[in-house]
Amino acid sequence: MTDTHTDTTWLDCIKWDANGLIPAIAQDHETGRVLMVAWMNREALQLTVQENRAIYWSRSRGKLWRKGEESGHVQILHELRLDCDSDVIIMQVEQRGGIACHTGRQSCFYKIYRNGQWVDSDPVLRNPEDIYEHKHD
Amino acid sequence: MTDTHTDTTWLDCIKWDANGLIPAIAQDHETGRVLMVAWMNREALQLTVQENRAIYWSRSRGKLWRKGEESGHVQILHELRLDCDSDVIIMQVEQRGGIACHTGRQSCFYKIYRNGQWVDSDPVLRNPEDIYEHKHD
Repeated sequence: MTDTHTDTTWLDCIKWDANGLIPAIAQDHETGRVLMVAWMNREALQLTVQENRAIYWSRSRGKLWRKGEESGHVQILHELRLDCDSDVIIMQVEQRGGIACHTGRQSCFYKIYRNGQWVDSDPVLRNPEDIYEHKHD
Repeated sequence: MTDTHTDTTWLDCIKWDANGLIPAIAQDHETGRVLMVAWMNREALQLTVQENRAIYWSRSRGKLWRKGEESGHVQILHELRLDCDSDVIIMQVEQRGGIACHTGRQSCFYKIYRNGQWVDSDPVLRNPEDIYEHKHD
């Protein structure tokens, strides 16, 4: 999916929150596993479509976050959907390296609720120190 | 999954946003289809676990939203997970009636991005007027 449209009406349809952001779910396009949720501003969403890969807005760092730029764990965009209220995005992605989480796991959703506690699950596929040479991706 | 624990430490682990809310994804536990995203406050999440069904906080109505209380489209909880940043919840649910969206569709994510436009997809399984006798669920 590549996109060279200059008409940005589709971006005006989004119900951005008070901070100009929308939550974006990344789901593995083959397995259906939900990999992560992060935020996008208008520029991030436009670039995501233009470059055919997930580009988020890092709230902690206050800048664009080209997912995988350090780790190589790029998310290739296969499909993009918007919900009925136009305030949540979901992407079907191909997760390069099979790892979405900065802990080295496939998915960020590895804490399972059991009997009043959150229990870590899912194997760490790669040591986070090996993933990042410099800083958190 | 039922829960009678009185220890609420697990709720203190959640990174609630400035409004005391957390986004919660409901995913079909069998097909992996992401059905909807809504918000929970502390009480909603606690009740979700206690009552073993999705209970949200309706931001528009400013009150608890027992999903399905009018439509019958209750979401039975099969699994609850939290992400690495503790600021997003995902639930594996059994969607009663096979319809999560107030438009009568299976999923709220029915608007697909195509060539600079959002295109409605997915069949309307039930007329919304038949779903709700009184008001929006």
